[in-house]
Amino acid sequence: MGTDERTKHASAYGDATTVHARGDGTFDAEIHPGWDIGGHANGGYLLGIIGRAMAHATGRPPISLTAHYLAPGLDGRCSIEVEVVREGRRMATATAVLRQGDRQIVRALGTFGELLDPEHGADGPVLVDGAPPDLPAFDDCVVAPDPPAGDRPGAGMGKRLASRLRPGDEGFRTGDKTGRAEMSGWFEFADGAPVDAIGLLFVADAFAPPIFNFDYPVGWVPTLELTVHIRGVPAAGPLRCVFRSRFVQGDLVEEDGEIWDSAGALVAQSRQISLTPRGS
Amino acid sequence: MGTDERTKHASAYGDATTVHARGDGTFDAEIHPGWDIGGHANGGYLLGIIGRAMAHATGRPPISLTAHYLAPGLDGRCSIEVEVVREGRRMATATAVLRQGDRQIVRALGTFGELLDPEHGADGPVLVDGAPPDLPAFDDCVVAPDPPAGDRPGAGMGKRLASRLRPGDEGFRTGDKTGRAEMSGWFEFADGAPVDAIGLLFVADAFAPPIFNFDYPVGWVPTLELTVHIRGVPAAGPLRCVFRSRFVQGDLVEEDGEIWDSAGALVAQSRQISLTPRGS
Repeated sequence: MGTDERTKHASAYGDATTVHARGDGTFDAEIHPGWDIGGHANGGYLLGIIGRAMAHATGRPPISLTAHYLAPGLDGRCSIEVEVVREGRRMATATAVLRQGDRQIVRALGTFGELLDPEHGADGPVLVDGAPPDLPAFDDCVVAPDPPAGDRPGAGMGKRLASRLRPGDEGFRTGDKTGRAEMSGWFEFADGAPVDAIGLLFVADAFAPPIFNFDYPVGWVPTLELTVHIRGVPAAGPLRCVFRSRFVQGDLVEEDGEIWDSAGALVAQSRQISLTPRGS
Repeated sequence: MGTDERTKHASAYGDATTVHARGDGTFDAEIHPGWDIGGHANGGYLLGIIGRAMAHATGRPPISLTAHYLAPGLDGRCSIEVEVVREGRRMATATAVLRQGDRQIVRALGTFGELLDPEHGADGPVLVDGAPPDLPAFDDCVVAPDPPAGDRPGAGMGKRLASRLRPGDEGFRTGDKTGRAEMSGWFEFADGAPVDAIGLLFVADAFAPPIFNFDYPVGWVPTLELTVHIRGVPAAGPLRCVFRSRFVQGDLVEEDGEIWDSAGALVAQSRQISLTPRGS
């Protein structure tokens, strides 16, 4: 791979997550405006940037990637320092830090490698104990309205996405909450770009927090840690996504996500732990 | 904290996860026999060692800790190099590597800090969408029989634990599988030692893989990545645990765990991704 990947990414997301290799394990990138929540870069978007640099350094796509968020990412230049700590035949493990100036924004640790054909276990049967969320047709779902500042996804990010929410799940916008800590809907980039493994890293954090539909105010929800497991490369078409929070204790809330493709295959699982919403 | 913690750990697990600070962010420890699976140290046990070193370096217990496993841990000396990458008022983030000689065994990344009272959200209600697994009384559950070599937990580890399985879940030992990829039961250390946050890191990987009760052979299940979220300090008494695998695709299997204390509180969640069982 060359030192400039820009020409490879003919999409807004690809462009906004482009990384430039210096050749010493360090990459230059830019946090673009319009992928933020009230000025703070979305956590999944930052995971896309750092994940792309790590995929570049290992020469493989992500299988399991964990990020811890240290400080808000702001529009502008950033650098990613990747250390490939193990290279095996099938998989490689890497750590990375994303910085803006001398400020650390994200630390990441992940395993990278090619997935086998997801339809077949290596030595046994496939197990799928679950199903895509039961959503009305794309056109019968609801365009997520522009959120207030301090929320996620931000007004800018809405323009990047053609996502639709299950009718009712948008109720938190108007105070008409479902009472269930669940957020589900269709995901699509506004420019129709296909979603690959690096795209899935973003999708895992691209819906409003399910806690908004439970008994918490809409506000900034600082993610401490986000882990995404990539389980397949999505077939073309919008993705069916569901995010649920099952446990809020102290000031910590967990959120579990499942992302299913148009062919009905699970393509990613996510889990994050965040602080409960801060006053907006 | 002093350079020798040994006197603090009056339990087998505490002893086997003791770390000695050199004072420069590096710790010496020893991988003890009897916490292994056919000679390879259990992944949760290794997480306990590296997690204790990170907790020592940050001066706080773990909240969210992720490990990637690079090579099998073997009985004998090891070192843990911890880098505290951020220290805030409430939380600190650290990375670590556990080595034996020049062999890297585990890489870890975690956020550490004191939990708030789990019974209260900071600015809103507690949410518990779930319940402890419905288990027969401790004495009516089944002592996990000694496993074959190459399995987990190993014959040695069985002596460390007083765990009991839900009747039926031990069927994989004799080929009488339940057909459900689930493993549940009670956890207790054989010496009755209380389980703290560092203990929970071990509990998250201390049951036989649920995939054994589905349609896969009993064999070595190499964990690629394990993440544990600590949600509370367990009340005294045995823990109710349930581990489920919902998705096997390609040669990758995910496993989700919940650990509940004797008072009915969720004290930890875990998720790992592993390769499907290797021939034993």
